[in-house]
Amino acid sequence: MSRPLKLGVAGLGTVGAGVLKLLADNADIVAARAGRPVEVSVVSARDRTRDRGVDLSNVAWVDDPVALAADPRTDIVVELIGGSSGPARALADATIAAGKPLVTANKALLAIHGAELAQAAETAHVPLAFEAAVAGGIPVIKALREGLAGNRISRVAGILNGTCNYILTVMREEGRGFAEVLADAQALGYAETDPSFDIDGIDAAHKLAILAAIAFGRPVDFDSVHVEGIRGISALDIGFAEELGYRIKLLGIARRTEGGISARVHPAMVAKAAHLARVDGVFNAVVAEGDFVGPLMLEGRGAGAGPTASAVVSDVIDIARGRYTPVWGAASGALSNMPSAAMEDHVGAYYLRLMLLDAPGVIAEVTAALRDFGISMESMLQRGRAPGEAVPVVLTTHDTTERAMRGAIGRIGALASVLEPPALIRIEPA
Amino acid sequence: MSRPLKLGVAGLGTVGAGVLKLLADNADIVAARAGRPVEVSVVSARDRTRDRGVDLSNVAWVDDPVALAADPRTDIVVELIGGSSGPARALADATIAAGKPLVTANKALLAIHGAELAQAAETAHVPLAFEAAVAGGIPVIKALREGLAGNRISRVAGILNGTCNYILTVMREEGRGFAEVLADAQALGYAETDPSFDIDGIDAAHKLAILAAIAFGRPVDFDSVHVEGIRGISALDIGFAEELGYRIKLLGIARRTEGGISARVHPAMVAKAAHLARVDGVFNAVVAEGDFVGPLMLEGRGAGAGPTASAVVSDVIDIARGRYTPVWGAASGALSNMPSAAMEDHVGAYYLRLMLLDAPGVIAEVTAALRDFGISMESMLQRGRAPGEAVPVVLTTHDTTERAMRGAIGRIGALASVLEPPALIRIEPA
Repeated sequence: MSRPLKLGVAGLGTVGAGVLKLLADNADIVAARAGRPVEVSVVSARDRTRDRGVDLSNVAWVDDPVALAADPRTDIVVELIGGSSGPARALADATIAAGKPLVTANKALLAIHGAELAQAAETAHVPLAFEAAVAGGIPVIKALREGLAGNRISRVAGILNGTCNYILTVMREEGRGFAEVLADAQALGYAETDPSFDIDGIDAAHKLAILAAIAFGRPVDFDSVHVEGIRGISALDIGFAEELGYRIKLLGIARRTEGGISARVHPAMVAKAAHLARVDGVFNAVVAEGDFVGPLMLEGRGAGAGPTASAVVSDVIDIARGRYTPVWGAASGALSNMPSAAMEDHVGAYYLRLMLLDAPGVIAEVTAALRDFGISMESMLQRGRAPGEAVPVVLTTHDTTERAMRGAIGRIGALASVLEPPALIRIEPA
Repeated sequence: MSRPLKLGVAGLGTVGAGVLKLLADNADIVAARAGRPVEVSVVSARDRTRDRGVDLSNVAWVDDPVALAADPRTDIVVELIGGSSGPARALADATIAAGKPLVTANKALLAIHGAELAQAAETAHVPLAFEAAVAGGIPVIKALREGLAGNRISRVAGILNGTCNYILTVMREEGRGFAEVLADAQALGYAETDPSFDIDGIDAAHKLAILAAIAFGRPVDFDSVHVEGIRGISALDIGFAEELGYRIKLLGIARRTEGGISARVHPAMVAKAAHLARVDGVFNAVVAEGDFVGPLMLEGRGAGAGPTASAVVSDVIDIARGRYTPVWGAASGALSNMPSAAMEDHVGAYYLRLMLLDAPGVIAEVTAALRDFGISMESMLQRGRAPGEAVPVVLTTHDTTERAMRGAIGRIGALASVLEPPALIRIEPA
């Protein structure tokens, strides 16, 4: 067998330790599939003394991760530091400049600087691989970019953040409120101390931006992704969803529309029988729709040491085998120039929950506002009666534009008889 | 852009026409992803006059498909004739001998002659690609062989035959018998006039043999696959399954066991909440379990012109890009030499349905037989009473060996009070 392939690994947190463990435990399998042994020759991490449960005795250390790029002991650099700027970005630039393949699990880096990095990698004829950046162990980048390569993809949608899916699953199963379930998730280690990256939808939006770029063959465009998180989801809305035959999921959805590529992350009502409605807990799932393949569904673990290490090592093996795919599926000259669609042009059905003063004429004011914006109602549901007090009223609409809905909501929210800001959740077809 | 990549296509049935349609409809996408245009230069099919809904005006014809191999107008040969021997086999041999890449959708060919063909392809340094041979449009070969390449896979299981899944789904939903639903499926074109290949489990076994080879990194071994079909499944058993919390599915299951690789295709009871239980109609699905990635589930269309063409073209694009993977994931010298396990050594739980004479002492005879073979019962269910006549009695067991079960069944089937051959369905953990 040939000379070992030598990795420089930057970052030895959960994922970094997982990669080292995989390469040690499955050295035989990795060597067979890569065509040569793969070993970690140099690492860079902050704490040299912490016990990570992996043998580091034959591994060299460098203090500055960026030094891994030019280090003659590395053939490939594996960036597991995280963050869209700082050392992660510097290491990525340096690795490409050094003409070495870069493997990263860093979705923020790819989402925000991916267009630039991909261009640099193409110019330098260097592989830039990031299967671990989206949906953890699920090989969704490979499936979309290579497995469905012959298809015109019309839509890709997914549950891309396990923390949010876990919180929403527990809220539904136990009928509890958001804040309480979040606190539990933090105690269990399923949510970070500062959870905003996850629960405000940013992490999912990073991943969706990458998926959309792959699915539609164009450079990543994070700024065009509409992002909403799950802080506003209440037990009340989860109850109504159940009653209406839906589950509430934080979805990332990218679609080819007449106005361009639409990409959005927001809580959505999904019919209970739909695939994505049945993905619970920390699992991730992605559904893609191609013109020849039809619907394709992938589900698996979206985070954690093992699944992420699995994805990182699959990239390393691809590189070892010389399997090369342009970052967005095609060389820069052959990428699509479809524009991004504005969220205001989104067309879909809506769930609107209002806290209304239980008094004559109130519903008439609300429905008049909808009518004035050309919005057609599909159903109305009122729970309980409390004359002179607030009662929840749920309206669902037929397809309408986001623009019209925002106009109507503005008018409705300003009504004296509307006692809380309206809760709006988009209804997503299965 | 470079010179077009020229395909020679053998076989212009549903799938062949689908490939030509995809290459015409999505020529732009395919060229971008392949890095060069892809065109069909020569075809070989029996009927030159039939309208296939695709433009063949710029395509040359040859009568003998084997001639495509040496034809200077072809860079890649796409074999869509089918059948494990005859012209398909001859074309495969000739293509490899001519040093040209071979893309095929032919599971029978791969299952039966795959070990030999893979060796020849490796010796000739020629790609041999067959994504379309298993699970249609689902990129399961790519996902297992590349996406999960770092994992020691312990189990791969799937619904691999859409015809059987359709029949079982309709039987359950409509409470109808096998023969009747099969006749309907034939009328609708979901089952062949001679349906035995599908309903006797042979097609699923071909696919499972290939999946097992990929998952466990060893040459395909079709002869070691235990095969049972769905002819024996009755509406009665489907009803009992429902009552016990199961669905009956025709599964292909390959597992790493202490005694070697076990591979089997048979109807199985699957807990209703399990993924595979919820895959209905003509859909296919595959679940794999890796030591680092955990469980991974893929679902999509397993047959038909579009999905199969999608898989064929993804292989062509891989070849156009120079992405090469050894047939079983590793070069021949690095393959696993794990033996195949015998079906008699299978360990699992069983469902046993007997038609028993409703008379004193009968159950005692049956349970004595189980006891004598060391089989421990988990539950017993008797439906109705008919003194002096036959009543169905269902037994489920705790884990036991196939060997013990066969011994017990032999004894039980010979009892005078057992009025029909026992129906045995294995219970598969989720």
